[in-house]
Amino acid sequence: MGRHLAVVGATGAVGQEFLRVLEQRNFPYDRITLLASKRSAGKTVTFKGRPHTIEELTEGSFAGVDIALFSAGGSISRRYAPLAAGAGTVVVDNSSAFRMDPETPLVVPEVNPRDIASHKGIIANPNCSTIIMVVPVWPLHRLCPIERLVVSTYQAASGAGYQAMVELEEQTHDVLAGRPVTPNVLPHRMAFNLFSHNSAIGENGYNEEETKMVNETRKMFHDENILITATCVRVPVLRAHSEAINIRFSRPVSEQQVREALAGAPGVRVVDDRAKNYFPMPIDSSDGDEILVGRIRQDISQPDGHGIEMFISGDQLRKGAALNAVQIAELL
Amino acid sequence: MGRHLAVVGATGAVGQEFLRVLEQRNFPYDRITLLASKRSAGKTVTFKGRPHTIEELTEGSFAGVDIALFSAGGSISRRYAPLAAGAGTVVVDNSSAFRMDPETPLVVPEVNPRDIASHKGIIANPNCSTIIMVVPVWPLHRLCPIERLVVSTYQAASGAGYQAMVELEEQTHDVLAGRPVTPNVLPHRMAFNLFSHNSAIGENGYNEEETKMVNETRKMFHDENILITATCVRVPVLRAHSEAINIRFSRPVSEQQVREALAGAPGVRVVDDRAKNYFPMPIDSSDGDEILVGRIRQDISQPDGHGIEMFISGDQLRKGAALNAVQIAELL
Repeated sequence: MGRHLAVVGATGAVGQEFLRVLEQRNFPYDRITLLASKRSAGKTVTFKGRPHTIEELTEGSFAGVDIALFSAGGSISRRYAPLAAGAGTVVVDNSSAFRMDPETPLVVPEVNPRDIASHKGIIANPNCSTIIMVVPVWPLHRLCPIERLVVSTYQAASGAGYQAMVELEEQTHDVLAGRPVTPNVLPHRMAFNLFSHNSAIGENGYNEEETKMVNETRKMFHDENILITATCVRVPVLRAHSEAINIRFSRPVSEQQVREALAGAPGVRVVDDRAKNYFPMPIDSSDGDEILVGRIRQDISQPDGHGIEMFISGDQLRKGAALNAVQIAELL
Repeated sequence: MGRHLAVVGATGAVGQEFLRVLEQRNFPYDRITLLASKRSAGKTVTFKGRPHTIEELTEGSFAGVDIALFSAGGSISRRYAPLAAGAGTVVVDNSSAFRMDPETPLVVPEVNPRDIASHKGIIANPNCSTIIMVVPVWPLHRLCPIERLVVSTYQAASGAGYQAMVELEEQTHDVLAGRPVTPNVLPHRMAFNLFSHNSAIGENGYNEEETKMVNETRKMFHDENILITATCVRVPVLRAHSEAINIRFSRPVSEQQVREALAGAPGVRVVDDRAKNYFPMPIDSSDGDEILVGRIRQDISQPDGHGIEMFISGDQLRKGAALNAVQIAELL
């Protein structure tokens, strides 16, 4: 009996990226089952050059499945991930359902791979903006403990799913043609516009995306003291998130030390050409596995030398979701 | 002899906005002269429903001119603004040429109107990102002295001129059609992309736009101690800049105090509907005179209560350039 893999939500933006990443990394398995809602069941998707039929996700779907990659939203995960775990499947869940559950490890392989060992059947994949941030920030936190992060994000449509990407393209056509637009998937017009992230605002005025960046980073860093504030914004970009990150270290840290720490960091590529004005951009990070880091400079507003500024960009669907989950599965 | 007004750079994006603002505000004058380069001389533009012929800018253009609004770039200003001032014209200059000159007042009417009185023939209009930031930040600095600002910008194409706006639209057409794009006006592809601001990077790693935000704010606030760091980014938006602003006050300041200070502040409109997820957006600030302010919240990363986060958006061509200059002229 070989290894049996399942992908839940195989027709979504992240699900499709799961299949690309599994193929590109030649992930070892003997059998694969592609699951989705009843609506998508019976459809055919191409994987490794061969047609695969989507099966309907049911309570019995996980019999004999060793690893299941979930990306079908929080309510599907809350219902089916415990069932799968109960049937002996190890679930890597891309939803937010179990991320802050103390029993569930939350893992970015470049940050806290050892946390995987404590799993009880479910391992959570962090929020995309969080993953993209922690890959370059973790080696700096190891260089010198970080006291505080001030982050502003520039988030792509893909984070809201495949339909949001389609909406951005169609809406842009309409705006260019002078036609009126009616946002449907996202709450506001995205074409030639930007808006505060479309997640609910909590009592403290932070939206859920921002709160995830705070709480998930603390959990993965095993550091409840790191202070984080974020402003999450959607911009008319298709599939890569960018972030301006202002860091306060607990001691003076030089730009050179930061460059050295990032040069050897896994999953990071420094793109920082001041003479050519060439820095991380979504069109360069899209479809790539690495988080691009640039604009690295000593923060002039921290005259004690504790501050560093940088600007990063990473593919939301790959490292922000599918790649990270597959990396977790590879470690299993 | 009535009041004689001149507009230098009348065919550019800001120049055209000068004309719109002068008309909308019914700016009082008896004669208007529209000046531009030799290339544009002889062209006709419509102003107040009547055709006006563009005249070539020469050394003799300012005889009898009372007020000249300049927006034709730094080299034109460096050459012609002193000539005009010498001929008795008061110049309101939108370029960066004289902004940091100790003899030249740098003015945002909502911030430091009294500085106008000290002019010696030239008054400088600040950088667009700076103007848009200081309009809502100044009333907060008066509420309680600000120690530090961490700013991330989301800047529109218009800041790079009319041709950059055309390029963004044309490039977006090309990307949607699957055609290759070759950036021309701006250094990188802007359609469905974003990039670090296209100004030269100084020795400290900050680009000129970021340095302007630091230095110009200090000059207008008459406060060399305020600490400011900025990351300036161009996003695929046509004509409004947005900014995420993280504030550290010298004392604890409540969200309520900030709301009250902004409610009565000139040039500011609070747009902050948490229930509807409705906050400042470029499509709402475009073509408007006010700086929209929202996402106002206590900064959770400053547990001593000294911190406030907010997100703003303002029209780059209007308050960021033409409107501010015309407001200065109105005060003269």
